Amino acid sequence: MLNNASAITELKALLGERLSTSGAVIDLHAHDEAHFPRTPPDAVAFPNDTAEVSEIAKICHRHGCPIVPWGVGTSLEGHALAIRGGVTVDFTNMNKVLQIYDTDLNVVVQPGLTREELNVELRATGLFFPIDPGANATLGGMTATRASGTTAVRYGTMKDNVLALEVVLADGRIIRTGSRAKKSSSGYDLTRLMVGSEGTLGLITEITLRLQGQPEATSAAVCEFEDANSAVNTVMMAVQIGIPMARIEFIDADSITAINAYSKMTMRECPHLFMEFHGSEAGVKEQSEQMAEIAAEFGGGGFQWSTKAEERNALWKARHNAYFAMKATKPGALGITTDVCVPISQLAKAIDDSIEDIAAQGITPFILGHVGDGNYHAALLVEPGDTQAMKTAVGIAHRMNQRALAVGGTVTGEHGIGVGKMKYMAEEHGEAWNVMADIKRALDPGNILNPGKMVQIN
Amino acid sequence: MLNNASAITELKALLGERLSTSGAVIDLHAHDEAHFPRTPPDAVAFPNDTAEVSEIAKICHRHGCPIVPWGVGTSLEGHALAIRGGVTVDFTNMNKVLQIYDTDLNVVVQPGLTREELNVELRATGLFFPIDPGANATLGGMTATRASGTTAVRYGTMKDNVLALEVVLADGRIIRTGSRAKKSSSGYDLTRLMVGSEGTLGLITEITLRLQGQPEATSAAVCEFEDANSAVNTVMMAVQIGIPMARIEFIDADSITAINAYSKMTMRECPHLFMEFHGSEAGVKEQSEQMAEIAAEFGGGGFQWSTKAEERNALWKARHNAYFAMKATKPGALGITTDVCVPISQLAKAIDDSIEDIAAQGITPFILGHVGDGNYHAALLVEPGDTQAMKTAVGIAHRMNQRALAVGGTVTGEHGIGVGKMKYMAEEHGEAWNVMADIKRALDPGNILNPGKMVQIN
Repeated sequence: MLNNASAITELKALLGERLSTSGAVIDLHAHDEAHFPRTPPDAVAFPNDTAEVSEIAKICHRHGCPIVPWGVGTSLEGHALAIRGGVTVDFTNMNKVLQIYDTDLNVVVQPGLTREELNVELRATGLFFPIDPGANATLGGMTATRASGTTAVRYGTMKDNVLALEVVLADGRIIRTGSRAKKSSSGYDLTRLMVGSEGTLGLITEITLRLQGQPEATSAAVCEFEDANSAVNTVMMAVQIGIPMARIEFIDADSITAINAYSKMTMRECPHLFMEFHGSEAGVKEQSEQMAEIAAEFGGGGFQWSTKAEERNALWKARHNAYFAMKATKPGALGITTDVCVPISQLAKAIDDSIEDIAAQGITPFILGHVGDGNYHAALLVEPGDTQAMKTAVGIAHRMNQRALAVGGTVTGEHGIGVGKMKYMAEEHGEAWNVMADIKRALDPGNILNPGKMVQIN
Repeated sequence: MLNNASAITELKALLGERLSTSGAVIDLHAHDEAHFPRTPPDAVAFPNDTAEVSEIAKICHRHGCPIVPWGVGTSLEGHALAIRGGVTVDFTNMNKVLQIYDTDLNVVVQPGLTREELNVELRATGLFFPIDPGANATLGGMTATRASGTTAVRYGTMKDNVLALEVVLADGRIIRTGSRAKKSSSGYDLTRLMVGSEGTLGLITEITLRLQGQPEATSAAVCEFEDANSAVNTVMMAVQIGIPMARIEFIDADSITAINAYSKMTMRECPHLFMEFHGSEAGVKEQSEQMAEIAAEFGGGGFQWSTKAEERNALWKARHNAYFAMKATKPGALGITTDVCVPISQLAKAIDDSIEDIAAQGITPFILGHVGDGNYHAALLVEPGDTQAMKTAVGIAHRMNQRALAVGGTVTGEHGIGVGKMKYMAEEHGEAWNVMADIKRALDPGNILNPGKMVQIN
């Protein structure tokens, strides 16, 4: 803490008003969307450019002061919590689109820009950035978390959509990884090493992202099912056949009830698939029709599809607000969310097991999934202070993670490790977790970058 | 060398006849497809399983003896040359398909299996492994080189198609990276760190690969152009519009002449695009027609497309044999090939510059490219022993690499670094190259894994 104080004195001299120790600012950075205990940093820095980030790193490196990068705090696992104090580096001022390369289908941005802001800037170009985790997260945060979301089934995750990075290392050195070329076999893939490293290996100061052309046509569809199994089997079949779905979302019956209430919709209260197709006019029609046929085979009914933008937007807005819709069923409750990802052959059983386990505890099972990827979420609502309910919820989440590992899956498809999933790292990765620690030690020997996360060093 | 001798004695005790020091065997492993001087290893090991690979690593680790992994030797940059002697580990005996997970669209294989052998094994499943670098390389070699080829424009490179790995580290520890889940945000992406690391960070002993469903329909097409520029502009427009091409290959006029002679074809001797489309019956028709329209805008003529398998196979066989077709124009000549990758907006000029530079030296400019990715190759033929011609060819290749870097590209889209491109690592990666060395030191402190490649340690 004494070290941190010395660092903060130097940072104040560097940044002036843009180094804040005010209670209100610190408080804002003491928690994210997750349910973990508040952990205030000692100070919050607001750098304006890469050079300042480098200077911040150099100062903190000299003093052994922790640095925790911060986007907009939409993390669900506590990635950006300053669990060992130190300086939170808030990238709010580094939120520009630096250069759009429309012919190359890529763009260079600063990390504090959000994905929605980027898509607004891209409107005139006919291009868009497809990755959509729901929350309007910053692109720096999404990169650091290896985020994905509803469109990953078609466009991949952040690992597939980050071409190049500028990164400030623990000692303040600035490196560039990757290039604007679409592919390369030159050197170790430091870009992919940084993507998903949650601020523990470097501070991302510039991101080159792949873009997509707006599809000629887009259609959205919904379909009702009698049970989760039929919905998931429909998706498995569609994946097998190779229908190039742009979005394929499972929403269970209780979530539909909550969404109906929150978004003023009138869907039948049963498991649903929400879908989207991108392509030519003829292509999206063909995909929708194929999908309707497959759904019918598994007893799916009420299949409706539409190419109208307003209907489509209403559908995805409702999906994105699902978390708030669930929380609205129990005002004031904490939301415990957990996400896992399994090989798709294991998905139907995994979801069934989760629903059963949750229901057995007398809790409403809110289950949603990016099911084309084998990725699903459970949200559990707990009254603040109800330690018994919290224990029950944590137990449910724990068993869901354990089952995912048992069938060859992973404890997080997209939310990341943060503080919430550290307890599974040894089990999921075995000896490879020690290799991760070796890499951390090589790049951040002082363990100042988001210490206490991802790896166990000290 | 004394250290190597002690290691070899122990390896002989471990492997018996499967540790060879015979001249013929060593000679086979002293060169690959590239033009570099022969560098014989001290011995060649043929392990049968992961446990043996681990024992080999432990022995070599104790004695500081270099280990160089070997697939089938199709490398074009000398990756598998034992430039510091030691033991070449030949994965010929580890060539099995371990498990096909057809519902999950993935497969677990050993590294010595070739991509064609895999596709033969997959025939009954309706699935295929799409990555196609031309040569019938091993999947271990393709993983280690981050290979790609004609289909990368649609299906990505090895980085996009390797889900998980088993790797033996320098000290013999065995780790598993990734999982069979389609995505994960759990931990550092060690899978992607190993993909493309050219045997310098670990020995790959098991690979989990993504598979694709056989498309309902496939069509191939060819189109003629007056110049390279028009062909490349056609591709740039098709990429912009988002036509989901499965293959899009540029072949320059002189290469067409060579292919006509070698593969007994009668194409007009002018720049061509070879294409392939995957999708539904209606989809491939639509794509082919759209492509024909775009080509016509850029003066493309003689557009022909076909869904007949035999015509398609003949076309791609001719393309894959292009390298041999070129070499056949100058029997006995060495082929100097170099590949670079640039942002696609820079591709037309890059190819023009290369053609001009080569022609100015009085050499036949054989240029081919996976142009949908901005990736192209030059092949230069040199008589063995003609040092002046070799110097000229190396100069051409050098300028091509320099120009690629100057426009934000990379010195290799797919062939890798090996010994041929080490000289560009500092320029392409700057300070990031030092970070690569830090990672190498962390994982292989004794520098026994393919030493002298990728990074500069000692």
